[in-house]
Amino acid sequence: MACARFLTLKIQTSGKVRAFSALMSPPSTAVFYDHHGPPDTVTKIIKLPPVEIKANGVCVKMLAAPINPSDINRIQGVYPVRPQPPAVGGYEGAGLVHSVGSAIRDLSPGDLVMLSPPSPGTWQTHVVKDKRFWHKLDKDTPAEYAATVTINPLTALRMIEDIVDLKSGDAIVQNGATSMVGQCVIQLAKLRGIHTINILRDRPGSDEAKEKLKKLGADEVYTESQLDVKNVKSLLGNAPEPALGFNCVGGNAASLVLKFLRQGGTMVTYGGMAKKPVTVSTSAFVFKELTLTGFYVQNWLSLDRNEELREMLDYLLGLIREGKLKYDMELAPFSEFHTALDKTLGKLGSQPKQIIKF
Amino acid sequence: MACARFLTLKIQTSGKVRAFSALMSPPSTAVFYDHHGPPDTVTKIIKLPPVEIKANGVCVKMLAAPINPSDINRIQGVYPVRPQPPAVGGYEGAGLVHSVGSAIRDLSPGDLVMLSPPSPGTWQTHVVKDKRFWHKLDKDTPAEYAATVTINPLTALRMIEDIVDLKSGDAIVQNGATSMVGQCVIQLAKLRGIHTINILRDRPGSDEAKEKLKKLGADEVYTESQLDVKNVKSLLGNAPEPALGFNCVGGNAASLVLKFLRQGGTMVTYGGMAKKPVTVSTSAFVFKELTLTGFYVQNWLSLDRNEELREMLDYLLGLIREGKLKYDMELAPFSEFHTALDKTLGKLGSQPKQIIKF
Repeated sequence: MACARFLTLKIQTSGKVRAFSALMSPPSTAVFYDHHGPPDTVTKIIKLPPVEIKANGVCVKMLAAPINPSDINRIQGVYPVRPQPPAVGGYEGAGLVHSVGSAIRDLSPGDLVMLSPPSPGTWQTHVVKDKRFWHKLDKDTPAEYAATVTINPLTALRMIEDIVDLKSGDAIVQNGATSMVGQCVIQLAKLRGIHTINILRDRPGSDEAKEKLKKLGADEVYTESQLDVKNVKSLLGNAPEPALGFNCVGGNAASLVLKFLRQGGTMVTYGGMAKKPVTVSTSAFVFKELTLTGFYVQNWLSLDRNEELREMLDYLLGLIREGKLKYDMELAPFSEFHTALDKTLGKLGSQPKQIIKF
Repeated sequence: MACARFLTLKIQTSGKVRAFSALMSPPSTAVFYDHHGPPDTVTKIIKLPPVEIKANGVCVKMLAAPINPSDINRIQGVYPVRPQPPAVGGYEGAGLVHSVGSAIRDLSPGDLVMLSPPSPGTWQTHVVKDKRFWHKLDKDTPAEYAATVTINPLTALRMIEDIVDLKSGDAIVQNGATSMVGQCVIQLAKLRGIHTINILRDRPGSDEAKEKLKKLGADEVYTESQLDVKNVKSLLGNAPEPALGFNCVGGNAASLVLKFLRQGGTMVTYGGMAKKPVTVSTSAFVFKELTLTGFYVQNWLSLDRNEELREMLDYLLGLIREGKLKYDMELAPFSEFHTALDKTLGKLGSQPKQIIKF
């Protein structure tokens, strides 16, 4: 998409003039980078010229797009799946249809849509993509949830559903429980009658964070220092030993998840916030029969099953509309993009997920 | 079994006299320990008095029994499954039927038998156990192989068959390749057309060890220091990237196995000779989609499927008789048990598996 726009730009600056009849998008204001590097230095807000909307094209006036850690890594050039610069940042997003190509029948200006599957270039006011990328939503869906439902809540849902055959009354243990995935795990597990044991890093405000998670439905919440005991399972009392664990931190926080797991349990790593590896004893494999594996939602998304994906997103968005699934977000006006970026980069302490509001 | 014998001893020393008609075993010379501790200090060779052979009992004159690392750990008291002392050491073994109880029809004196499933107390000249424990073998089966086929070769076979669906042309990578399991992996994989990449520790004689493994059918053999390169896979050339890895060492040797694995590969840990944990990066889980798991033959053996087990052992022993499966062993006369034990404990440098020969 970005390339198409740059191509148009090139054509125009080289002096050719397009036919007036071509349907064009409005100019777009975009977060742009022309080489990989630290996101706070390589990204610039620029104005991109109008692009042609082809017969199957849909131009969407964006309403919301999140700043995900993977977006940061894409700009840094360290993410396995990334567009080649020059590119516009962002990967998830939702907005209102602004104008449609001549062949489009099932979308009209004003419709609420989200990108599905997610694709590059959402950090801009107007996004033009083929109709295959847009999924029409109920009007009463909050745009900031539509813009954030694919990466994090879907990760939580698939990790609960696909790894271990859990039954009501089983338990899950997770670290990084205040993350967006963590918050979704608590609520989605609760809906299935699955207990959650949640581990937080020690930090100012951890008591408040605990209360928040308990309100979402967390059964047990511990800070890492509370788990500095010989036998963490003694804390469980009569609660079930978890069959499944989620790790998005690494290092000691991953070891704590392993300690909670029951015989034959499985730990899924989906992130590494502490930038420390996972360390496992031989006896955990041989005698405790643990299995460790990973989850990467991108692989799930790339399996060419967009229909199944959209059903799942509709399910999650339905829960959201019913108030059964929610998570912390901070809406950041697009004009203050670089402040939101700094918050995501951790320059301003622990912050909720930043959502660009256009 | 040990308890029954001690009970008999007690009855006799308390002055009661048994009926002459009871069928009794010969006295047995045994490696005995009455408390857990370092095997070289707590084990004693003692003479045990005759025990009664019940109607379904079989007395076997032992021919061979290995000293496995798990036997050492049982005596140390650190193995999860272990008899309560006082006990006789050993867990695998084979011998000739000496005498049978009155209800036994399918075993006769002189038959070659092995313990299956393995059970405690094989380090003695005469073992009396219920007929369920004895599996009759072809006379031409080498006793030292019958005595060692259950723990190590079966581990190799099950790890190749049960974890990943391998096809001819696939590859396996393993560390600790000179171990008994390692040697069996090479040969059993070869029989199925599966390549093996084998990693050895650097040590005197590693060139000889490499040659030995190549003669067994190893496709590639490297010492750890040879793998101290940026990209170990560059060494593979056109050889397939392994889908499955086996780790019995831990630490750096486990990391080397992980580095060789292909996208989505699985590493199975079945031992920890280096006494160091396994360390795994977040990206190995998330982006390389590796799975790590464990294998413990004891769990397989405890699944109440002795018939299936015996079929498998017959298959392995068939390969052995055909010369298609072999491994290094050193036969140690029972009278020199403590030297063999010292060799197993590593006091005399790297040594092949010690098999007590009665």
